[in-house]
Amino acid sequence: MTTDMDIALNAELDSIIDIAAGLGLESQDIIPYGWTKAKVPVDVLDKAAETTSDGHLILVTAMSPTPAGEGKTTTSIGLADGLNELARSKPDVGQAVLALREPSMGPVFGMKGGAAGGGYAQVVPMEDINLHFTGDFAAIAAANNLAATMLDNHIHHGNELDVDPRRIHIRRVVDLNDRALRGVVIGLGGLNGGVPREDAFDIVVASEVMAVFCLSTSLTDLKQRLGRIVLAHNRSREPITVNDIGAAGALTALLRSALAPNLVQSLEHSPAFIHGGPFANIAHGCNSLLATKAALSLGDWTVTEAGFGADLGAEKFLGIKCRTAGIWPSAVVVVATLRALKYHGGISVADVQTPNTEAVIEGMSNLEHHCGNLLNIYGLTPVVCFNRFPTDTDEEMTAAIEHLRSKGISAVESTHWADGGKGALALAEAVVEAAGGAEKAGSGARYSYELDRPLEEKIRTIAQRIYGAADVDLPTKVTRKLKQFTDEGYGDAPICVAKTQYSLSTDGSLRGAPKDHIIEVKDVRLSAGAGFVVVIAGDIMTMPGLPKEPSALTIDVTEDGNITGLF
Amino acid sequence: MTTDMDIALNAELDSIIDIAAGLGLESQDIIPYGWTKAKVPVDVLDKAAETTSDGHLILVTAMSPTPAGEGKTTTSIGLADGLNELARSKPDVGQAVLALREPSMGPVFGMKGGAAGGGYAQVVPMEDINLHFTGDFAAIAAANNLAATMLDNHIHHGNELDVDPRRIHIRRVVDLNDRALRGVVIGLGGLNGGVPREDAFDIVVASEVMAVFCLSTSLTDLKQRLGRIVLAHNRSREPITVNDIGAAGALTALLRSALAPNLVQSLEHSPAFIHGGPFANIAHGCNSLLATKAALSLGDWTVTEAGFGADLGAEKFLGIKCRTAGIWPSAVVVVATLRALKYHGGISVADVQTPNTEAVIEGMSNLEHHCGNLLNIYGLTPVVCFNRFPTDTDEEMTAAIEHLRSKGISAVESTHWADGGKGALALAEAVVEAAGGAEKAGSGARYSYELDRPLEEKIRTIAQRIYGAADVDLPTKVTRKLKQFTDEGYGDAPICVAKTQYSLSTDGSLRGAPKDHIIEVKDVRLSAGAGFVVVIAGDIMTMPGLPKEPSALTIDVTEDGNITGLF
Repeated sequence: MTTDMDIALNAELDSIIDIAAGLGLESQDIIPYGWTKAKVPVDVLDKAAETTSDGHLILVTAMSPTPAGEGKTTTSIGLADGLNELARSKPDVGQAVLALREPSMGPVFGMKGGAAGGGYAQVVPMEDINLHFTGDFAAIAAANNLAATMLDNHIHHGNELDVDPRRIHIRRVVDLNDRALRGVVIGLGGLNGGVPREDAFDIVVASEVMAVFCLSTSLTDLKQRLGRIVLAHNRSREPITVNDIGAAGALTALLRSALAPNLVQSLEHSPAFIHGGPFANIAHGCNSLLATKAALSLGDWTVTEAGFGADLGAEKFLGIKCRTAGIWPSAVVVVATLRALKYHGGISVADVQTPNTEAVIEGMSNLEHHCGNLLNIYGLTPVVCFNRFPTDTDEEMTAAIEHLRSKGISAVESTHWADGGKGALALAEAVVEAAGGAEKAGSGARYSYELDRPLEEKIRTIAQRIYGAADVDLPTKVTRKLKQFTDEGYGDAPICVAKTQYSLSTDGSLRGAPKDHIIEVKDVRLSAGAGFVVVIAGDIMTMPGLPKEPSALTIDVTEDGNITGLF
Repeated sequence: MTTDMDIALNAELDSIIDIAAGLGLESQDIIPYGWTKAKVPVDVLDKAAETTSDGHLILVTAMSPTPAGEGKTTTSIGLADGLNELARSKPDVGQAVLALREPSMGPVFGMKGGAAGGGYAQVVPMEDINLHFTGDFAAIAAANNLAATMLDNHIHHGNELDVDPRRIHIRRVVDLNDRALRGVVIGLGGLNGGVPREDAFDIVVASEVMAVFCLSTSLTDLKQRLGRIVLAHNRSREPITVNDIGAAGALTALLRSALAPNLVQSLEHSPAFIHGGPFANIAHGCNSLLATKAALSLGDWTVTEAGFGADLGAEKFLGIKCRTAGIWPSAVVVVATLRALKYHGGISVADVQTPNTEAVIEGMSNLEHHCGNLLNIYGLTPVVCFNRFPTDTDEEMTAAIEHLRSKGISAVESTHWADGGKGALALAEAVVEAAGGAEKAGSGARYSYELDRPLEEKIRTIAQRIYGAADVDLPTKVTRKLKQFTDEGYGDAPICVAKTQYSLSTDGSLRGAPKDHIIEVKDVRLSAGAGFVVVIAGDIMTMPGLPKEPSALTIDVTEDGNITGLF
């Protein structure tokens, strides 16, 4: 069988200088990392943004996924390649540019594998993108860990700020799935080994530094946001920030080079900015704001994705990132698969490959709920893209597409995984049409809630409008914390909900479009640097573990230096 | 005052493509990291080594230093610039290339600051070299930590290898001074949070992966060495290696890109390979073997340094690295300062800036001991370089130089810190002369001990021949472990002593050239991947801590992106 890795290794890559030139960038404008990767400095992007008008922004999101995922990254890459393929016959379509998240090494060595697309819809060099890439995650880990170190060192050297060791929020991070670090005690090294306390490590993508990095509009904004991160509370329950321990400058120095977005290419040479990758639960789950802005100012079409289903990913993309950046999509692609429809139609995961048109139609309730949200709440035009799998039958596919079209929803099938950009031509055409219609209508940004409403009301609004919940359950501990955040001046912050992606509810086993459910909020956290309030409505794992037989066992390097076993 | 940072930021750097071209490398041969840094792939270096003969190798070492350090890195850079300055008037001298260690971020944010030279003898871009550089240390940390994670995960999932949790040797690492991680308990995250056990973190430069990285001759050799690292012992006291847990391929994949040496330049555009940086106590303390080989095959002169004084750094450089690589220096520069001589002459650190010619001569016992070792044991020609400080008087300097010359030892003063390469012309000329003489004599490699001797005898030989000790004290625990290493097949390994650098003895307060002292060995460890036996004869700190006012507090970034406060 031809693996993703085989396809990627056999690809002929263009020089990154040529890819940059296609975006109007001189070779001296970019910072090469080898000849197929580069960073584009923020000042170069600022200059480009001044002289060009933004292209069309297309968000790729999804219905509530199955555990296998429905292929948002692959579809994003396919769409960009499809748009660029379309432009070959219709030059006025213009150029499509990708804006995607960087993969974490945790899944690479764990279970899920790499995150650079798949089949003939990949970004390359995939082995570099999946392993270290340009070092951004290492820089983010170092910045996060320096803050943690400086805080513990402050306590060790006398604790002038009266930090309460039981109220420390910053956790050290690694970019690995290291379950043994989920719960630790540190500071046991004797008199010079710090002050003992309970602690835990997170994976780097779960850090607030990562969220801050991805929402920053400039180096100055980055420093200000880093400075606001609340590391701990003191014994008077006042917040202790990065600024309080004097670490904002050093953290910014560690992140200075990383902040420039990374440029690579798809297998078909579509330019791709791949930069940042915050968790989609306790953070907002999309690539850096600077990468999206870069794609918007340098290309005619920006194709970007947001983590999980539309209830989480699109909501946070629109309500947090677009609101911060002052941008808005022209259309939204909702990735769906027949297997996910069947799953939401009541079929078990083991049986979703068996043809079953009835179950496909039964599962439409979930997909239609997401499409309805996009249209009615945000005023956005959804385009449903069926990411075709080899086991899908024509009968099921035709029924699914006709069902949606009968409801007035644009729907196409796409074979980019097997066929690359040519397989996504129908999708590209549907997106161009949807974006054209939306831009003619010119409705502009509409959010699911307004920032000036009380925090509790904003949470309830999301639950009822987006998830279709009857209400939210907010324990006293939570309402007390919300009041505290408001008192501390964060009442105007947007909401970032952490809940299961497998259901519109907080119960992962409730499929389709559950009604009358209650969103149970367990806790709330302030991410003062990122600038949002995290609402925890589920068990959120911030440090994954390795399975018994992790992918790391199959990864190897040949004598001539080729990596094998990455998938 | 003009700081190192001011000088570095005002420097006009050549494009790294031009620096590479000066070494005969095409632009497509190198992997640029921006326009002033690059990696040179190992296969390119292998090809170059086949077609050229090696240049002259010059080791820069030092007398027993004061805590402030005597300026080995600065002198190495000055010497390379001095040789290249000399070549401008005498073209047949040829080109000098540096091979140096990469700085750790621990000292950068802690107390010591950066490690890219100083004054007008620096390698640039210093702010990049001191912060992340090309990501090598992050890759080494990730590889080390993946091995640790996989081991704990193996125990969690049933422990088929019967790993004894009390006999785990691998420690997780970070590239920060994080004292709170000196002693920890991990695995406290409940049922899915691993198995609880005592643990500790080290700084990345103290990891065996770092030592392995720096001694590897190829990617294949790297994988084999990584595979041999002993992570733990099982309950039957048998070693559990990286190969046993199936991690060698994944670790090698993480290090594949990092293994290519990094190329930068000095302020005067001398090419500089800066690559790897193992501890000089529990490891061998010099840059990667591949970087040294790269400099040797691409340049006419290779100037390289080894950590600490000559008793530790030169001994390990010669006995471990040169023996592994099959290389040998043509001359050795011994860096000395008047302040270190006065210190060894009995003056307190507070008073070493006060002129005192008598103390200078009194302290010569230390310097002469090191020079005597180099000459008599290794058959190498020492050139003493007085790294001149502004407070040094001409009278002291003349007395020092005349004293050494009267004993037949080549000695010069050098003002590279203030004057760059022009200030090191006398040093360059002395080195060329010494190397010419040595190569004419052609004595070849002579080690302080032969590998085929028993481990215990090798330790005693180093103590008596190099340190001038009367004997070694080996507790039963140590002799038992040495027997075990021998039984396991490591009897032929070289010895890597970890002891104080401030004295030839194991008592840091014994200055000059102490006699009749006993080397007390506390413990021995096998570094099976690196291929040496570590002899611990002192308190070795493998995780430094931050001071109360760490340098991190002064590091900042200006709005236009310049880093300030690095020194």
